[in-house]
Amino acid sequence: MDATAPQATPAAPVEMHELVPYAQAPRLRDGQAGETGITLAWEDGEQVRLPWLWLRDHCACRACRHAQTRERLVLPLPAIARPREARLEAGHLYLAWEDGHESRFDGGWLHQRRPGAEAATALPAPRPWPEGFHPARVDHAAFTGSVEGERAWLEALLRDGLVLLDHGPLADEEVSRLARRIGPLRPTNFGARFDVRSKPNPNNAAYTAIGLALHTDLPNWRQPPDIQLLYCLENDAEGGESLFADGYRVAEALRREAPEAFRLLSETPIDFRFQDEEQDIAVRAPILSCDADERVVEVRFNNWIRDTLRLPADTIEAWYAAYHRFWTLLHEPRHRLAFSLASGEMVAFDNRRVLHGRGAFDPDSGRRHLQGTYLDRDMLESRLRVLARHA
Amino acid sequence: MDATAPQATPAAPVEMHELVPYAQAPRLRDGQAGETGITLAWEDGEQVRLPWLWLRDHCACRACRHAQTRERLVLPLPAIARPREARLEAGHLYLAWEDGHESRFDGGWLHQRRPGAEAATALPAPRPWPEGFHPARVDHAAFTGSVEGERAWLEALLRDGLVLLDHGPLADEEVSRLARRIGPLRPTNFGARFDVRSKPNPNNAAYTAIGLALHTDLPNWRQPPDIQLLYCLENDAEGGESLFADGYRVAEALRREAPEAFRLLSETPIDFRFQDEEQDIAVRAPILSCDADERVVEVRFNNWIRDTLRLPADTIEAWYAAYHRFWTLLHEPRHRLAFSLASGEMVAFDNRRVLHGRGAFDPDSGRRHLQGTYLDRDMLESRLRVLARHA
Repeated sequence: MDATAPQATPAAPVEMHELVPYAQAPRLRDGQAGETGITLAWEDGEQVRLPWLWLRDHCACRACRHAQTRERLVLPLPAIARPREARLEAGHLYLAWEDGHESRFDGGWLHQRRPGAEAATALPAPRPWPEGFHPARVDHAAFTGSVEGERAWLEALLRDGLVLLDHGPLADEEVSRLARRIGPLRPTNFGARFDVRSKPNPNNAAYTAIGLALHTDLPNWRQPPDIQLLYCLENDAEGGESLFADGYRVAEALRREAPEAFRLLSETPIDFRFQDEEQDIAVRAPILSCDADERVVEVRFNNWIRDTLRLPADTIEAWYAAYHRFWTLLHEPRHRLAFSLASGEMVAFDNRRVLHGRGAFDPDSGRRHLQGTYLDRDMLESRLRVLARHA
Repeated sequence: MDATAPQATPAAPVEMHELVPYAQAPRLRDGQAGETGITLAWEDGEQVRLPWLWLRDHCACRACRHAQTRERLVLPLPAIARPREARLEAGHLYLAWEDGHESRFDGGWLHQRRPGAEAATALPAPRPWPEGFHPARVDHAAFTGSVEGERAWLEALLRDGLVLLDHGPLADEEVSRLARRIGPLRPTNFGARFDVRSKPNPNNAAYTAIGLALHTDLPNWRQPPDIQLLYCLENDAEGGESLFADGYRVAEALRREAPEAFRLLSETPIDFRFQDEEQDIAVRAPILSCDADERVVEVRFNNWIRDTLRLPADTIEAWYAAYHRFWTLLHEPRHRLAFSLASGEMVAFDNRRVLHGRGAFDPDSGRRHLQGTYLDRDMLESRLRVLARHA
């Protein structure tokens, strides 16, 4: 089979039925068919071998992919992935299979998907806060009124783990309306949307007026909420400034300055637990979770709901020393971001990376009222990919 | 400091302000104080050393733990964890610290929390389905009307990853009412509650009448929903039987019968992706995820939303072979559980372990209508712990 000879007559356009544009990718220039696959070359010089089975598996015809859902409808077996003909037509690949099936692939579409190519939409990589970090600010009107504003907000949040929105309306539930632009609210045992102000008979320290040391929310869940949104409706009380620290940055400082403490906190699961009359939500997990490359990917830190420390007797004192060391680093001025949230401002942050807290406030000096909710990180990434379709 | 001499006068009872009972644990028999901690011995022969810092950290007085929230209010530093007096009183431990603070610990409470002791409420461990597995069935009335019924349902679901509820009412939204007894519904891009029946312009294969091969839901999320509930309101159509396979069991069969295929599927992240006009939710993850002990803890399998296979060219064919092998094992009769869900029955299963599917049905032969929702596993475990308080 020689796929190099272009057809004399112009071929029908190949429609890949995709939401993400692929038309601007380079055209196919050459194809050399072999026994188990074909080696394709594009006009930009890229060249890869694609197995016949890969091509059959990625056939985008209406029999192989559902017209509405775009979902794959078949799992082709190697036995049927034998072409009787393979040819290039106007920069596209045409395959006629031995079982009578036919496949057409746009050359640019194949270029986008060739082995070694990155996925189409690149998401911002997390970047630890630099010295003197100032969070990005996006205007409420830009967020709600422009693709650029919403993208800037999403990208800062994925990159820095924290972003501010300002000049928003002082409207009840505005936080939920903003969140729902991105995805469904993630409910927890505190509800899908919560109010942060001092209240009688609190079941959680956040609902008091006391200062809150840096922490992450709900580390007692297997899967704590990813993204927290806190919208300020009123903040006239004395005190109550918002405090943040980048857990990724501080964990790296710990790894550098006290490697043994880092090792203990990342390798020792401890118990977190929240209990009230209705719930008893507990998990055993380390303070710092690393991926296979030893990169810190999650910080669980919440001294209030740290449960009984169930460690072997000879580890207890070393663990406390490591925990104190991390606590001290977290609260050092060089790692701390502090500001007063004004009414109409919203802070959004990655709850699995960035720790938050607040100064004590005097509930008799004025009102302080925040509304909060959580979102799944999946929804932020999805939204950014959808917005990128229009880039 | 000698803590062995019991007091002549009976001490006041020690109130630890706990929701989980601890009163039946053995009493303290002896305490030998040292420089950095105390060695305690209980009437059942247990003996452990507890560092002073651990004891100060676990002080349950109203200054150290919030009266309503039961949350820890302080992080004691080693410097203040020096007792000037330690003594046993009526089986309890009394400590007077150098800074004037006092702590009282119930001896049974300490026994429950001593290093080496397991957490109070043991949850059922996952157990792969045996040959000829029959799922547990719980009557709707027992589930809603008795602690025993609800516990049986929760325990079977955590142990087997699948449980049936029967003789339920044919009431719209019954699935949501049952779910909310356990926790908040977990919303996804398909809503917090979904209807499974064929419908025009489906954005998902589940909303057609075609057969659905075994799959897990939403493996394109970083954190797919844990638990799926499917409540049958009508099932008169021909066909449409429910199919299940235990991913843990089949993965172990793969590991045994084709270790290289197991290795490839567990070590090779692939792309999953769902796209429609509003969403583009994608993640890169392996089909099989193992924990540090090489135990399979998660199965992601959904051929419809498997995205472009972006692997190095020399891995592609081996990966397909491994994937086909797993697919074949999954669909073998020895691994398959098949039954027709009757109206008024609900199946609940662990979506990160158990694969589900259905036979094709003829939408012209009768109606088929299921309502479904998702729950977080955290909520199941919490509910079981709360029910255990009354055991």
